[in-house]
Amino acid sequence: ALATPALAQGTLPEIRWRCASSFPKSLDTIYGAGEHVAKRVAALTDGKFQIRVFAAGELVPGLAVADAVQGGTVECAHTASYYFVGKDPTFAFDGAIPFGMNMRQTSAWLNAGGGRELLRDFFAGYSMVSLPAGNTGAQMGGWFRKEIRTVQDLNGLKMRIGGFAGNVLQKLGVVPQQIAGGDIYPSLEKGTIDAAEWVGPYDDEKLGFQRVAPFYYYPGWWEGALNLSFYVGKSKWEELPQQYKDALESACRDSTIETMAKYDVQNPQALRRLVAAGTQLRPFPREVMQACYKAAFELYDETAAKNENFRKVYEPWKAFRDSQFQWFRVAESTFDNFVYFMHAQEQQQRR
Amino acid sequence: ALATPALAQGTLPEIRWRCASSFPKSLDTIYGAGEHVAKRVAALTDGKFQIRVFAAGELVPGLAVADAVQGGTVECAHTASYYFVGKDPTFAFDGAIPFGMNMRQTSAWLNAGGGRELLRDFFAGYSMVSLPAGNTGAQMGGWFRKEIRTVQDLNGLKMRIGGFAGNVLQKLGVVPQQIAGGDIYPSLEKGTIDAAEWVGPYDDEKLGFQRVAPFYYYPGWWEGALNLSFYVGKSKWEELPQQYKDALESACRDSTIETMAKYDVQNPQALRRLVAAGTQLRPFPREVMQACYKAAFELYDETAAKNENFRKVYEPWKAFRDSQFQWFRVAESTFDNFVYFMHAQEQQQRR
Repeated sequence: ALATPALAQGTLPEIRWRCASSFPKSLDTIYGAGEHVAKRVAALTDGKFQIRVFAAGELVPGLAVADAVQGGTVECAHTASYYFVGKDPTFAFDGAIPFGMNMRQTSAWLNAGGGRELLRDFFAGYSMVSLPAGNTGAQMGGWFRKEIRTVQDLNGLKMRIGGFAGNVLQKLGVVPQQIAGGDIYPSLEKGTIDAAEWVGPYDDEKLGFQRVAPFYYYPGWWEGALNLSFYVGKSKWEELPQQYKDALESACRDSTIETMAKYDVQNPQALRRLVAAGTQLRPFPREVMQACYKAAFELYDETAAKNENFRKVYEPWKAFRDSQFQWFRVAESTFDNFVYFMHAQEQQQRR
Repeated sequence: ALATPALAQGTLPEIRWRCASSFPKSLDTIYGAGEHVAKRVAALTDGKFQIRVFAAGELVPGLAVADAVQGGTVECAHTASYYFVGKDPTFAFDGAIPFGMNMRQTSAWLNAGGGRELLRDFFAGYSMVSLPAGNTGAQMGGWFRKEIRTVQDLNGLKMRIGGFAGNVLQKLGVVPQQIAGGDIYPSLEKGTIDAAEWVGPYDDEKLGFQRVAPFYYYPGWWEGALNLSFYVGKSKWEELPQQYKDALESACRDSTIETMAKYDVQNPQALRRLVAAGTQLRPFPREVMQACYKAAFELYDETAAKNENFRKVYEPWKAFRDSQFQWFRVAESTFDNFVYFMHAQEQQQRR
């Protein structure tokens, strides 16, 4: 017989947490991923476990949320881990690594491929637990005032790009700029910067970059997928009744399904509008991609040589990525490429 | 203030359901997707809402689970909807359509792209609700005793393949065979059939096909992704307290994350073992793929012309697929193809 546990639900505590988001409300999908977690947790606990989400800047600045969780100012946060590569580049594995893995592969690593265990140890050093909660998929390469035709065109380019990707591009002469979302448009308009990357069509369109930079490059090779993270203070996590831990974990996974589906529905619509309004789509030239790829893996080797945290995650991550690519090159990518090829043919015939 | 709803959790009913799975326990990942739903529902409701999963054949045969839910023999089932295309081909949209969409695109359609609403109406006709709960990703094309070089090689080929894909292949002269999992191996060994498809490397390896058919083809173009479904009797669903509905929905999404991650971890390992043991990997020739593609879309047009249920879903599904392909051809597939290209180069250099 299935016995009901002795602890009746009526005895579960009422808990109210504050969650600091790294995102503004205007980015409704990515900010919404954190709100979705909160909504599901409340629904799953009959409203007893309440998480209130605050937009970037309401409690703490968007890039200060890790400190706020670590220091106990808030119980939890919703963020992108690569914002904190300045503390330790190892954070990037929990968000995105340039030329890393796509959404499925990242999720496989984090949920069943050993990534969770490796990162648990790393995050414990910051007194935090990090749960995957949302994903953007592959992002765009951003907006450029001039075309990029050769690797030399990167030299001296002032580009708004953050974190680890900025370090990669620096090796090729790019001058990376850290600029908050709201300030990118005027900088691009005035020509203070030459290029800026943000997320993908749906989010980029809202900031209006198409009006001041005609060339929209792809792919955002620094974010083949961006895993979003729900940070919880470690002691707060440990205090939770098991049922609330389960609710939070399932709510985060629910949010990943929800957010990825929303982006995949919204991005094609936005891209169509952008192209109809004159945006010129450009793939990065292969030569440029290859130079960046080489620079990226040089950077990882250099980083692993001097940072033991990074090395401990990088080696198994890279082996996992190898194994994923071997498999995805067989069934997945052959399927995708074939149906895209047929789709392209049909589009041409319609014209 | 965040008021706690008047209905305390202590008043929630104890509910025990039986779930008929279409899968045997030996297929631990796909069967496990149903068990994962049950485990999470119990965890999220403090054990008050218990679902007990029965393997195919324990309560009802694997392919009879829809009837069992519709007739009220069981409250719920875990299955693949294309098993029921004999009742109505419209079921296939909830599972997989040959040359349809990949996992991300299918999930986008079902969760945010209008698919859920369209299918809700269709399933209401069977007094059922269907929730996405697990996915296999792109499957393999199956095991062949002889190589397939031209479209003519399909003529007269006896192949174990089910549902809608069998109807497509029939147009090219294949004689589709419906054979249960356990009987495929002896049929292939004796040469009663020439080919058989099952799932992917991890599941196929268990059935031992590699010992009796040397050629392992890809991709399984009839299953660019297979969405697994958790069926609930409509009246049973409506009787659930909202909190249990929420628990079941989040548990199903949790199961999709879990199952997809497990397959993506297990398949590369199994594929490596199969290839090391002598399995010969072969892509279907493009000419063969194109002939099958043409036959597939002819079949959909024919089916839509005579089946109003199918037509109502097919048209918006196809428009959604078009829009997804436009977007995925930009950032996602350019990223994937580039990193796979570099990976192939590195592999060659290592040799």
